[in-house]
Amino acid sequence: MRRPRDLTPLLDPRAVLLVGASSDHAKLGGAMAASLASYDRPVALVNARGGEGMHTDVAAAAAALDATPDLAVLCVPAPACPDVLEECAAVGVRAALVCAGGFAELGGEGAEAGAALQSRLAGVAARHDLAVLGPNTSGFVVPALDLRASFVPGVARVADGAVAVVAASGGLNHALMFALERAGQGVSLGVGVGAGTSVDAVDLLAHAATDPRTRAVALHLETVPDGVALLDAVRTTTATTPVVALVVGEHDLGDFATSHTGALATSWRTTRALLEQAGAVVVDDEEQLVAAASTLAATRLTPHPDPGVGLVTAQAGPGLLVTDALLGAGVRVPELGGAARDRLAGLLPPMTHLGNPVDTGRPGPRHGEVLTAVAADPGVDLVAVYALAEPVVDLPASVAAADLGDAAVVVGLDGSADEVGIGRRDAAKRGLACQVGARGLVSGLVGLVADARTRHRGLDDVVAGTGWVGATDGAWDEARAKDLLDALGVPTPARAVVTEADARGAIRALGGPAVLKVCDPAVAHKTDVGGVVVGVTEATLDDALARVRPLGAERLIVEELVPDGLDLVVGARRDPVFGPVVLVGVGGVATEVHADVALAGVPATRAQLTALPGRLRARALLAGHRGGPVVDVDALADLLADLGRLLLDHPGLEEVEINPLRVTPGDGAAGWVALDALVVPTTTRPTTRATTRPTDQED
Amino acid sequence: MRRPRDLTPLLDPRAVLLVGASSDHAKLGGAMAASLASYDRPVALVNARGGEGMHTDVAAAAAALDATPDLAVLCVPAPACPDVLEECAAVGVRAALVCAGGFAELGGEGAEAGAALQSRLAGVAARHDLAVLGPNTSGFVVPALDLRASFVPGVARVADGAVAVVAASGGLNHALMFALERAGQGVSLGVGVGAGTSVDAVDLLAHAATDPRTRAVALHLETVPDGVALLDAVRTTTATTPVVALVVGEHDLGDFATSHTGALATSWRTTRALLEQAGAVVVDDEEQLVAAASTLAATRLTPHPDPGVGLVTAQAGPGLLVTDALLGAGVRVPELGGAARDRLAGLLPPMTHLGNPVDTGRPGPRHGEVLTAVAADPGVDLVAVYALAEPVVDLPASVAAADLGDAAVVVGLDGSADEVGIGRRDAAKRGLACQVGARGLVSGLVGLVADARTRHRGLDDVVAGTGWVGATDGAWDEARAKDLLDALGVPTPARAVVTEADARGAIRALGGPAVLKVCDPAVAHKTDVGGVVVGVTEATLDDALARVRPLGAERLIVEELVPDGLDLVVGARRDPVFGPVVLVGVGGVATEVHADVALAGVPATRAQLTALPGRLRARALLAGHRGGPVVDVDALADLLADLGRLLLDHPGLEEVEINPLRVTPGDGAAGWVALDALVVPTTTRPTTRATTRPTDQED
Repeated sequence: MRRPRDLTPLLDPRAVLLVGASSDHAKLGGAMAASLASYDRPVALVNARGGEGMHTDVAAAAAALDATPDLAVLCVPAPACPDVLEECAAVGVRAALVCAGGFAELGGEGAEAGAALQSRLAGVAARHDLAVLGPNTSGFVVPALDLRASFVPGVARVADGAVAVVAASGGLNHALMFALERAGQGVSLGVGVGAGTSVDAVDLLAHAATDPRTRAVALHLETVPDGVALLDAVRTTTATTPVVALVVGEHDLGDFATSHTGALATSWRTTRALLEQAGAVVVDDEEQLVAAASTLAATRLTPHPDPGVGLVTAQAGPGLLVTDALLGAGVRVPELGGAARDRLAGLLPPMTHLGNPVDTGRPGPRHGEVLTAVAADPGVDLVAVYALAEPVVDLPASVAAADLGDAAVVVGLDGSADEVGIGRRDAAKRGLACQVGARGLVSGLVGLVADARTRHRGLDDVVAGTGWVGATDGAWDEARAKDLLDALGVPTPARAVVTEADARGAIRALGGPAVLKVCDPAVAHKTDVGGVVVGVTEATLDDALARVRPLGAERLIVEELVPDGLDLVVGARRDPVFGPVVLVGVGGVATEVHADVALAGVPATRAQLTALPGRLRARALLAGHRGGPVVDVDALADLLADLGRLLLDHPGLEEVEINPLRVTPGDGAAGWVALDALVVPTTTRPTTRATTRPTDQED
Repeated sequence: MRRPRDLTPLLDPRAVLLVGASSDHAKLGGAMAASLASYDRPVALVNARGGEGMHTDVAAAAAALDATPDLAVLCVPAPACPDVLEECAAVGVRAALVCAGGFAELGGEGAEAGAALQSRLAGVAARHDLAVLGPNTSGFVVPALDLRASFVPGVARVADGAVAVVAASGGLNHALMFALERAGQGVSLGVGVGAGTSVDAVDLLAHAATDPRTRAVALHLETVPDGVALLDAVRTTTATTPVVALVVGEHDLGDFATSHTGALATSWRTTRALLEQAGAVVVDDEEQLVAAASTLAATRLTPHPDPGVGLVTAQAGPGLLVTDALLGAGVRVPELGGAARDRLAGLLPPMTHLGNPVDTGRPGPRHGEVLTAVAADPGVDLVAVYALAEPVVDLPASVAAADLGDAAVVVGLDGSADEVGIGRRDAAKRGLACQVGARGLVSGLVGLVADARTRHRGLDDVVAGTGWVGATDGAWDEARAKDLLDALGVPTPARAVVTEADARGAIRALGGPAVLKVCDPAVAHKTDVGGVVVGVTEATLDDALARVRPLGAERLIVEELVPDGLDLVVGARRDPVFGPVVLVGVGGVATEVHADVALAGVPATRAQLTALPGRLRARALLAGHRGGPVVDVDALADLLADLGRLLLDHPGLEEVEINPLRVTPGDGAAGWVALDALVVPTTTRPTTRATTRPTDQED
């Protein structure tokens, strides 16, 4: 695991040098000077042209300080940055914030010069072991220290709080800090990583994990330069501190993304899946990010396979909205048991709904007892309490009066800005999670549930997979790939690898109609090019041979015909950013047109692997839909672990795919047969992705 | 079309009677009295037990008023309501708000009595032609008149504005009004419909369409009692006033929904599809509802098939987030043309991104010219301008300085509560649409685009469909259904309907392997029960006959075997709420497990019908995916119109379904063949839905 950088000189500097300061607040260096003025430790300003309160060079500024300037803030143009950084290092600076753009993110004519400049900057940082934040960022904020190294004027409004914002972009860092501010929340830290030449999200997550002020991290990602280190950091951090992640880049954002981040995007789906597996709560937009992170900063469930929510609402309409959205997010809203219903019947008027949600009408004096009754239900792990905020309604007090046992609680409010502000402050004083609006409440609840579930899955035993020993070099055709599967104990159809001359004998030996396929590593998409003939008998063999002959394959496979069933795609591939991942989808065009594939990094726990089929939109197909086979998820987990271990053990393998793995109805658990297999060695990686290639036996 | 009720007595009463008033503001009748006190016309209070300022009966209260009490507000318990309403009618009341619950929404032991009580109340309303809002609602608000007939204390904060809130539930009405208030927006009207015994969403939409204060409607629906009237109202309203709709009930909300609304939910998907077809913008949550409605209240595009958004952002990170979300919502963010890029190159520093989005960095003095350049691009119909709100940045002023031509504009802000408040007020003063946060901006833009698109589709010619004349009574088997398709000109396979004795001759006549099927209206799921044998030859006929014989069908179909292709499900059915709808999906299990069906009400315009394939998640399959056939969407529109017209013309038909309609690759446009057809007469409607039935010829 990569050793994280010590960020103390950056985030808690004994003194600060601002190079490129200005007295004009409309300029970047002037806004930065104004922001840094709130820091209660020494800040020296440098401007080559001098000016009131300005030093004309770095050395003079440093000499004037009565403390070591751990941090240098550079508001100078890009071309000047490497030399200025060198000067700063000479006076003892150990960390820097570089705001300027104009480095590797440049496109067009400036691309080469920009990349060279960034490389020079990185060289200076490495030589002096400097923690450099940026370039191309608007800075960072540590409100508890009143350290606001940002050129965005409004940062003075950002209050101290429990959420650490770690954003890929300076703009997003500020947008998120302000969104938290508007929600009545503060931050322990807000950082825009920018180009990430030395300080990156990995360092910041490691910092947040041990920072006593940070109770949750709001993580925004655009690109992932080092996937393995990022996942390690998320795993380590989430053991103590929840991480909520927003990944941008579902769609092709073209050269704008390149111009902004200076790096190619990795796979959005893979990044989300692997972050989630590592323990993060993955969200879809910045509002969910703010709601989930602020909720998780206030409360957290213990690891749990599937926590149930008990919703107590004062208004039925919003209660329906919240319940509908929770069910849509796959969160359990269980029926309450008889004991809870009996207790509620004694507490509430007869017209109210005593199920889940509990519809109380306007909360009365015994509202705390209602919450107690719901929390005591064995199916409820998390209580949500919603009401329109009114002067006569005090939900935080109701919660405080309740005995919630081990259940967590989130308060949901609607109402005028003034009323919800009062409720929110009351909740904060009592240390309660509180969200405004139905969607905010849902985002908070879903975040808590997702966090508890992913941590629970992470606690399960790792599935090591079956090892395989063998050479991986040379060409891989279907026959060799299936021999590998045989060695792993994966069922394959009875078959013979033959020349044309031996085909007839092989069909006779199989004793029924067969499948005839070309077996040649040079023919990658054999179905598409007519290299597969189904239902071949001795009578039709000559015709079948005539059809495949133009492909020029010397070897043929004669294989038993397998009955119809459910076709899965199961495989392992080497993600360029994250390393080996395993995946499962339903075969045929559906997987592709619906982009319906579930994946996990390996090694993985059994619970992480057995959860994959449930992630598919087409999951019903794997669960005995309309009399179809039921996929044995435990056996599937073992198979995935085997395939993943192949890649972990053998750097020479790039990809292994079974497509289709045909599942046939059996007695109870279903069996399966690998109809086709593809092994791609590392040096001959195809450009198309595994799951978009039609290598069906019979298609 | 249903004639809408005149709501003047309800929403603009000359005087008001409050029955069940109280001097205790914590009580419902006390809170209502406090709210109504702001109305500047006479309000008389009635409490049977008297009290300060109270009349003890309705007649006395009415007599004390110097104007006719058009409106009576009833804050009395449910059992008293019918009689009180009768008394009110006697003194000239023409409208009433009934707040109490305890009517038809009651479950369990009280269900029968509750329904009877509601029926009595409705009887009184009908007899006296009263516009009754409720029962079971917290009321309504008309801020421009300071008329606040609500028992929720905070309603005094709701300001006058341009959005009419029409909510199924009183709680949601208040939640939405307050959400608008928190967003700096007011309402022209806010109504919670409740049980909707007489005044319902249809009346309120009709009112909003002609209300000069209303510029957009935020509609919340739980159940739809009269689908045809609702769609009529949406069509009429959206001609002048945009309607944004949130439909609750994607998931089974069980007895809680029943207890709240007192009615069964209709199909969520159908309701959304038909509202959208009628001209509404359909959203997924209440935050989108607020953002889209408030944006559409400020600006609206002219009808357009596919408006393009030009995004000008001051910060790249949020720009990426917005662009990613717009693409995810299917909104076009077109590349800018050379002319726009050239103009931008002269306005912006070289490091900024001149594509779309345009990344300006902090807006400078020529920001208005940047907006002008983007708006002038021929691909841009709608300009979005985003920035972190700072004292030195004035986006509304930039917009005002720009020449946007015909392009609409939405301002997006992030920043501290104070700063965005200033920006929002500036925007409002200039009449500009303004949203806070990336998601709010996206929701506003998507709303504008959706509104322009659905109106454009509505302007196209209606496809009347081919009429068919014939009897519909009696049993419908596959043979009769296919004869009907033949009459409509839908290609079907060559076939013969035979007895066992004639099967051999029929196979010989077809001249190749055939499909043998039982033809018996009593055998509904013939594939599931073994009633279909594929690839039957004269040699295998006896075996095939032996397999289907146990089903006891007297008639058999011998049909030509159709080559593989893309299987669609195409049909028309009679929705219990909305009437005839047509639908298209991809055949096989995918449609079902992915719930991937697109539908429209009929009659429909050509643009509405040709848009359906594009609504499918699997739409790529219909567009020549991997060498597959390209579905002729115009021919499909004609086929759908034909099937829809069958149901429009023939009340005896409940459902017509072609499953599968096999599309085979052709030269250019694809042809198709209806492999199986099902006609369900009205009296024998099956309990399962058309699209979940496996009636494939060969499956």
